[in-house]
Amino acid sequence: MEVKSGVAYTGVVGVLRGGRPGKVIALRADMDALPVTEQLNLPFASKVRTSYNGQEVGVMHACGHDNHVAILMGVAEILAGMKEQLPGTVKFIFQPAEEGPPSGEEGGAELMIKQGAFENPKPDAVFGLHVMGIAGNVGQLTYRSGGTMASADLLRITIKGKQTHGAIPWGGVDPIVVASQIVLGLQTIASRQLDITRAPSVITIGSIHGGVRNNIIPDEVQMEGTVRTFSPEVQDEMHRRIRLTAESIAQSAGATATVQITRQLPITFNNPTLTEQMLPTLQRVAGAANVSVQPPVTGAEDFSFFAQKAPGLFIFLGSNKTGVDATTAPVNHSPLYEVDEGVLPLGVRALANLALDYLSQK
Amino acid sequence: MEVKSGVAYTGVVGVLRGGRPGKVIALRADMDALPVTEQLNLPFASKVRTSYNGQEVGVMHACGHDNHVAILMGVAEILAGMKEQLPGTVKFIFQPAEEGPPSGEEGGAELMIKQGAFENPKPDAVFGLHVMGIAGNVGQLTYRSGGTMASADLLRITIKGKQTHGAIPWGGVDPIVVASQIVLGLQTIASRQLDITRAPSVITIGSIHGGVRNNIIPDEVQMEGTVRTFSPEVQDEMHRRIRLTAESIAQSAGATATVQITRQLPITFNNPTLTEQMLPTLQRVAGAANVSVQPPVTGAEDFSFFAQKAPGLFIFLGSNKTGVDATTAPVNHSPLYEVDEGVLPLGVRALANLALDYLSQK
Amino acid sequence: MEVKSGVAYTGVVGVLRGGRPGKVIALRADMDALPVTEQLNLPFASKVRTSYNGQEVGVMHACGHDNHVAILMGVAEILAGMKEQLPGTVKFIFQPAEEGPPSGEEGGAELMIKQGAFENPKPDAVFGLHVMGIAGNVGQLTYRSGGTMASADLLRITIKGKQTHGAIPWGGVDPIVVASQIVLGLQTIASRQLDITRAPSVITIGSIHGGVRNNIIPDEVQMEGTVRTFSPEVQDEMHRRIRLTAESIAQSAGATATVQITRQLPITFNNPTLTEQMLPTLQRVAGAANVSVQPPVTGAEDFSFFAQKAPGLFIFLGSNKTGVDATTAPVNHSPLYEVDEGVLPLGVRALANLALDYLSQK
Amino acid sequence: MEVKSGVAYTGVVGVLRGGRPGKVIALRADMDALPVTEQLNLPFASKVRTSYNGQEVGVMHACGHDNHVAILMGVAEILAGMKEQLPGTVKFIFQPAEEGPPSGEEGGAELMIKQGAFENPKPDAVFGLHVMGIAGNVGQLTYRSGGTMASADLLRITIKGKQTHGAIPWGGVDPIVVASQIVLGLQTIASRQLDITRAPSVITIGSIHGGVRNNIIPDEVQMEGTVRTFSPEVQDEMHRRIRLTAESIAQSAGATATVQITRQLPITFNNPTLTEQMLPTLQRVAGAANVSVQPPVTGAEDFSFFAQKAPGLFIFLGSNKTGVDATTAPVNHSPLYEVDEGVLPLGVRALANLALDYLSQK
Repeated sequence: MEVKSGVAYTGVVGVLRGGRPGKVIALRADMDALPVTEQLNLPFASKVRTSYNGQEVGVMHACGHDNHVAILMGVAEILAGMKEQLPGTVKFIFQPAEEGPPSGEEGGAELMIKQGAFENPKPDAVFGLHVMGIAGNVGQLTYRSGGTMASADLLRITIKGKQTHGAIPWGGVDPIVVASQIVLGLQTIASRQLDITRAPSVITIGSIHGGVRNNIIPDEVQMEGTVRTFSPEVQDEMHRRIRLTAESIAQSAGATATVQITRQLPITFNNPTLTEQMLPTLQRVAGAANVSVQPPVTGAEDFSFFAQKAPGLFIFLGSNKTGVDATTAPVNHSPLYEVDEGVLPLGVRALANLALDYLSQK
Repeated sequence: MEVKSGVAYTGVVGVLRGGRPGKVIALRADMDALPVTEQLNLPFASKVRTSYNGQEVGVMHACGHDNHVAILMGVAEILAGMKEQLPGTVKFIFQPAEEGPPSGEEGGAELMIKQGAFENPKPDAVFGLHVMGIAGNVGQLTYRSGGTMASADLLRITIKGKQTHGAIPWGGVDPIVVASQIVLGLQTIASRQLDITRAPSVITIGSIHGGVRNNIIPDEVQMEGTVRTFSPEVQDEMHRRIRLTAESIAQSAGATATVQITRQLPITFNNPTLTEQMLPTLQRVAGAANVSVQPPVTGAEDFSFFAQKAPGLFIFLGSNKTGVDATTAPVNHSPLYEVDEGVLPLGVRALANLALDYLSQK
Repeated sequence: MEVKSGVAYTGVVGVLRGGRPGKVIALRADMDALPVTEQLNLPFASKVRTSYNGQEVGVMHACGHDNHVAILMGVAEILAGMKEQLPGTVKFIFQPAEEGPPSGEEGGAELMIKQGAFENPKPDAVFGLHVMGIAGNVGQLTYRSGGTMASADLLRITIKGKQTHGAIPWGGVDPIVVASQIVLGLQTIASRQLDITRAPSVITIGSIHGGVRNNIIPDEVQMEGTVRTFSPEVQDEMHRRIRLTAESIAQSAGATATVQITRQLPITFNNPTLTEQMLPTLQRVAGAANVSVQPPVTGAEDFSFFAQKAPGLFIFLGSNKTGVDATTAPVNHSPLYEVDEGVLPLGVRALANLALDYLSQK
Repeated sequence: MEVKSGVAYTGVVGVLRGGRPGKVIALRADMDALPVTEQLNLPFASKVRTSYNGQEVGVMHACGHDNHVAILMGVAEILAGMKEQLPGTVKFIFQPAEEGPPSGEEGGAELMIKQGAFENPKPDAVFGLHVMGIAGNVGQLTYRSGGTMASADLLRITIKGKQTHGAIPWGGVDPIVVASQIVLGLQTIASRQLDITRAPSVITIGSIHGGVRNNIIPDEVQMEGTVRTFSPEVQDEMHRRIRLTAESIAQSAGATATVQITRQLPITFNNPTLTEQMLPTLQRVAGAANVSVQPPVTGAEDFSFFAQKAPGLFIFLGSNKTGVDATTAPVNHSPLYEVDEGVLPLGVRALANLALDYLSQK
């Protein structure tokens, strides 16, 4: 296998050229951990610590990416062992920074693509998987055709009023009241203006900050939020409506709203033809009764960048221990998130068979 | 006395020309009753009934205008008896329709002026009084310099959305949600945007109507309201801000708002010089301890039209029985509103002496 | 065929007992029209007129139920012609009042069940279909497993404030402002509180009424709305949250809210096993390329009552003419809604084959 | 004169016992400056700098207290020169920290009283004055009977929701949306619930802070604000209504609101009898045409603590240069606030004559 490391800082790309001619399939595993202090009492619990936002915190594989690495290593070992019979090429992509590069920097899937990870050879299709508590228990696979994980856009709204004494509101323009009207106005986009049967959509304001003292009405309020949906048309419509809502409501009170929307992660779109084509593989490796349709996941994934370059399929592995209630088990990113290691064999079988079946089909 | 009746339908104007030369003073009493079914058990309780908004209701002097008529008749009798010594002219104005003419018709003070009640001779000043429960008990007078009773403007807002099935809000534009945002937006004008130390201001939406069925989002919502304040500058500013608020908020959701504001009654403005000049008269007739400053009254009065034509002074007579708690007694327009007849002598003395003192002063 | 008419007023039930033993399958067609004045220039356009809400309006098959009747009559003719070979029984249900009986009366599917339409013999499964503009063009079928059409609950909220003069809001409790806060509060249930990936949910206030005059703050505001979702658990949660939202917000201003929620139509739930079992039939009669998954429909159907009594499958027939853009064509309930008659043969084949295949399968 | 310094850190109290027996009158001047960097180009512009909230800023007499000190020193010199004829005692109170002591510490009028400044001898009445741009130009005095400057209460509201991922709002409780509803709910207290003709009232949220990232819905939002009014009864009612509004609205969404209201400064109440008694003095020293009624000032003053201990009168001196438009001149606390020194003689005459007349009257 040809291996290239140092792609997008710590990423690794391996290319396994089979003994027979064929297509190129890419398999991707993300590798990064999170600034979460592990609370699990496991022999291999993380002891690594780092500084995050000025505070010392632990570093934990709280999203289970270590399982993805282990699975893809297993797949690599299996497929490498049958290299001669392989009708085509398998590209192994070990990707860092799926959880997002440090603010203002490039990283993850987007940077790997920029640095050539998806060229020479160029994949005809790409597969990925994710362990997920809420998807069910060990042994279960879920999948979805079309929009599967949401787009994630960063929303910044600055409301500019006019500072005045808290006792004399009429001497200025109160941006806190205007911000409140805008926050409620944004709710009506989701509740009234978007076709929710076409694509679930979320507009969240995650932070709001304005003012320094009880008795000064400040000049401005800053808000940050996230915008999520599953259809590019709805995404564009959401942007347009968010701007109109914020700007017009600000205007109603003599304030101004500046709206900045940055597209961060595209929709993770499972190619319907590819999904339909590979479904029998999933049903074979897990048993048909253990494969089900995944509802849309409003979380986002930078696998989406790879799936923009070639038809993609991203599936989920149930990671809760058998017998655990999937609806109450600690979910991804929790300091108590625990992946049953029993998930690994099915993950390996799923990815390896997806690759083999894909290369073997016309 | 020269008497002319039939002014503004049922109004009466009497002119008493004194034996000595002097100025012209007008005294005004309003005469009309209200479509309120009297609930008082009095020998002279009203038995008259009428049809109002398609329903049969009683007709009651629920605002106490019958007292005003009685008082002004008493004043006329007294002043007529001293006609020869009178240094000037007294004009007695008995006015109908103070509570407002039938919708779409002219009437009241404005029509009397139009029909010449304030000409030949033209008054140099005008006095009026009103019995008022909340002003205190019998024997007490209140007055205010400057803006005393509020302007009353009729506000109509039509919000035009786009009809759709109640199950498919995204197929249209929901005017009920937009109306709700506008109603809350209007609150911020009073709470944030107006100098409340300069003039108390009220914006009320008194009626809201839209939709015929639970599962149809209607095309439009109609709202009516009243706008009240005590300063012409604030009044103009309120109109501007109401329009901006309604129109911009409607625009934020893809709807439109049509705002129509009709000036109905001007501010009842007591001329400060006249007020200061006549205060000793009030203190003399009621006793200084029984005369106090009246807080601004957000109700409106069409006496304001007369006070636009000549310096005016409009005072209040406490009308609750001695011993009754003025803060809990039934107020004007209540079917239980009761005026202690003991109010009449002070009312007569007040108006008669105001007229005499005014004419006697330089 | 045994035919019983007069079920639920004008409903008809036909029972066709096949020559061979087997299960019982029910096929249902709804028959009723709507108070919509037809604007189509067709030779068979409706000329019938009726009185509705005090106004004379036309009566039109604006939801296309006439096609359902024609299709089911066609199916009956075909299956009756092969009665001897039929391995089981087919029950034909022609149902009135799907659009809802007159206010306060019983009718439709619920009343037919009450009057025994689903007994003697009791169906083992039930099929239905609906022509639908937005589902696509003639020749296309759509289906959905699980929650397919929404539950519809009637929501009534009465907000009780305290009447006062429009100029003196502090003398009472303003129910119009409270209603506005509640309307905006209800938006946050859909936008924040419900898992939109599990079930799209709609809360609509379709009518709001309060107040008679611009200058009287009324005692109360009445609102009516509709509550829609696709999961019984979400439905219960919505009811709980609507009550909490309305009651607590009213309390915040010293008002009270009385919330009344009436379950009108259950979720139209397509039995997943039955759906999977019959999908090959649909693909055979329409061609696999013409069968697609239907997104959830927030409209409601009283077929849901039948599907509560036996496993059900309710499918949609594209009814727009080939070449017409399904996204802009007039939709069901429009006075311009037009069904291409070319839809009839596929509808007949679909229902007839569903029945035959169902009875033929184990 | 007996002088005691070091009262409340840097305060000074002087007692001038006149040669004749009589009452005790207190005259108060506040002395402190503000952390505002002076932008006036004056020979005596402040060059002092300090550290404030971690930043170096200038220290400026931006509220004109230096004038108050100069005036009271002038009064002391005059009255000391006529000590023998003085029928009573004059207490000179030079007070620090009127603008508020450092957070969490005691200071100002309240601490001076605690340290005995109002004992031995105990004043029978207390006078104070303030230069004010908006009150008019040099030569003018304004006064008000009753509530003159507002009470100032510190409002803290903590809204506790439940943290969740920004993509999964239904997994938690969004305190930012709840905060927005509460901010708008608070507006309705001022706009609907309080008698604005009785007392202007202000509820301001001056700061709002919650959340650290666009895609995390935070656990809580903190708000701080100020509550102002002119009547103790209205103040109590405001507290009750603020609590009810915040707590009930939070409850409507499954959140909780903790409301903490700290009374900081009482209403500055001018004793009506004392005001009426001293008005002729003001009219004599300034000329009747230059004395006018001051509208209520929503700013607050810790002179109010002295006026709780003895009947008080607090007046305002117009401080803009003649010819300057008082409505646009830089106001108190502005880095451009400039007091015309011509204000000093009238200030001295006013305070000295108030003291003398008070002591000379029965």
